[in-house]
Amino acid sequence: MTAADRVVGIDDVRVAAGRLSGVAIRTPVMRSDLLDELCGCRVHLKAEMFQRTGSFKFRGAYNAVVSLTPEQQAAGVVTYSSGNHGQALACAATLLGVAATVVMPADAPTMKVDAVRRLGAEVVTYDRTSADRAGIAQQIVAERGGTLIPPYDHDDVIAGQGTVALELLEQVPGLDALMVPVGGGGLIAGCATAAKALAPGIEVIGVEPAAMPRLARSLDAGRPVGVPFVPTVADALQTVAPGERTFTINARLVDTMVGVADVAMVDAVVILSDLVKVACEPSGAAALAGLLTSGAPLQGLDVGVVLSGANLGLVDFVARRQQLLDATAARSSSMGRT
Amino acid sequence: MTAADRVVGIDDVRVAAGRLSGVAIRTPVMRSDLLDELCGCRVHLKAEMFQRTGSFKFRGAYNAVVSLTPEQQAAGVVTYSSGNHGQALACAATLLGVAATVVMPADAPTMKVDAVRRLGAEVVTYDRTSADRAGIAQQIVAERGGTLIPPYDHDDVIAGQGTVALELLEQVPGLDALMVPVGGGGLIAGCATAAKALAPGIEVIGVEPAAMPRLARSLDAGRPVGVPFVPTVADALQTVAPGERTFTINARLVDTMVGVADVAMVDAVVILSDLVKVACEPSGAAALAGLLTSGAPLQGLDVGVVLSGANLGLVDFVARRQQLLDATAARSSSMGRT
Repeated sequence: MTAADRVVGIDDVRVAAGRLSGVAIRTPVMRSDLLDELCGCRVHLKAEMFQRTGSFKFRGAYNAVVSLTPEQQAAGVVTYSSGNHGQALACAATLLGVAATVVMPADAPTMKVDAVRRLGAEVVTYDRTSADRAGIAQQIVAERGGTLIPPYDHDDVIAGQGTVALELLEQVPGLDALMVPVGGGGLIAGCATAAKALAPGIEVIGVEPAAMPRLARSLDAGRPVGVPFVPTVADALQTVAPGERTFTINARLVDTMVGVADVAMVDAVVILSDLVKVACEPSGAAALAGLLTSGAPLQGLDVGVVLSGANLGLVDFVARRQQLLDATAARSSSMGRT
Repeated sequence: MTAADRVVGIDDVRVAAGRLSGVAIRTPVMRSDLLDELCGCRVHLKAEMFQRTGSFKFRGAYNAVVSLTPEQQAAGVVTYSSGNHGQALACAATLLGVAATVVMPADAPTMKVDAVRRLGAEVVTYDRTSADRAGIAQQIVAERGGTLIPPYDHDDVIAGQGTVALELLEQVPGLDALMVPVGGGGLIAGCATAAKALAPGIEVIGVEPAAMPRLARSLDAGRPVGVPFVPTVADALQTVAPGERTFTINARLVDTMVGVADVAMVDAVVILSDLVKVACEPSGAAALAGLLTSGAPLQGLDVGVVLSGANLGLVDFVARRQQLLDATAARSSSMGRT
């Protein structure tokens, strides 16, 4: 087996957990009797909105930056991100005294762009529909030096994200299933690695926007395949293809994929606010949306659900929800006319 | 000193804490660097939205019901409440196997009415603008028997609410000031009792809707005085006069009163969601609204802020916020025309 063939294992996740100890927040697991009733199972919510920078992304970013040599750290880090990874890398770099540059889409929520700048990183924007974000980041590295830390397709990032499931299974040892939102697949790759090592019988379920079923299609095809870009309310999950390294892991360890509609994610955000009293962004609530809409195949079981982040402001959330309601109303009224 | 003169003391709060141990949730104290920057001081948020039934009210209700004799418990309990105390009493009574009846205004949020029913209590509704809720509750007691547990003007209720500050000062011993939302004054009476006993130099600051400054007026007058009913976004703080027992305590222990506008409470809810990732209702965010709008007299200090509850659904909150924005826009446009 060559170095390129070696994939992230439980030992890498444990090493990451050691590095993150005392730096990352050991986020709480939250419960609600009413939510259990709604879902027909015992739901254990891993609340990563309380993580540093408001999402799980800090875990992978910090693990990647702290793994660099002092020379690499001195040259700085660069990434591209719809926001959460950008904030996470900016925060991790600042904590470690490393300079960071973040390439972000021009239409990313203001709150996310501002947060990255405030955390001390330089922001370079691009047009999401035309430009290639990875290409822009690589060009910056070529011109200025530094190390590219991509948002998901990177072993240290994957290992860091795996600490979410490592912690959750320490907090709730008897989980029957684990539901995880899927964008590029880094979170679920790390979580599946940890979960299957600690609880071999656990069912690992990925949840992605129904409009962009990259991982489901790729698992069917047996190789990473892309899907067209479709704007969804889940701006943190809008990747068009799985990563190569994440796909290698996910093809082996992910048991089931579920697709969720925008309205299901928005509803899950409202339910989390009302019943659990926590803020969550639609992308972060995707796994719960999957559980709420999947017709209760997990009835009576203990189900871990990763709430991955909360970096969409409440006012922006309200506006997006209203757009979605208006669009739904317009569709049904035009259907009524035919 | 007769029994009627005796007011709640720190020993009563400690006894309540013992009864609540293992039953009530020891809620977390939450922090945010960005919130500290906004407020100009170190803000320690006591997160009572994570309390049983979504507000601090469970503490007082349980302490009152558990203090009844077995004969009294067998006859049931009755109360009137805009919602949070009703849910709390329903929950406490159910836990203790006691029947509960709750008198609620007909315009209370659906979520609150449903929650009280689901917790096993009988709900009797009345018209908030015409009928006397306390009178209705007393009539029920006269007809059916049972004990009236009022929402705030009751020693065991006050002592129970005091455990909020008792816990907070154990969690953060060096507080310089404590800010507490004020409705009927039970929460601040209990909290001031505990806080002044544990930290005699602490400044206790009450925050009430600017439109209904009952406690501020009463403190000025040296006796409980009423104010006209004015609908505010803070439906849990819409009492027209302080309680007699709460006033006796608050006249002695409350240092400062602050009034907050509806829009300040709504903004505080948004800030809590965006920065702290927690859901809060406008009434529950009143103390933070007071801190955010009081012009930083507490600069550089350690300030405890009680977030008292989160039982307004997100969809209802969004609707009320929109009404407020529309009303503000209509006012400034009509001012522009004159």
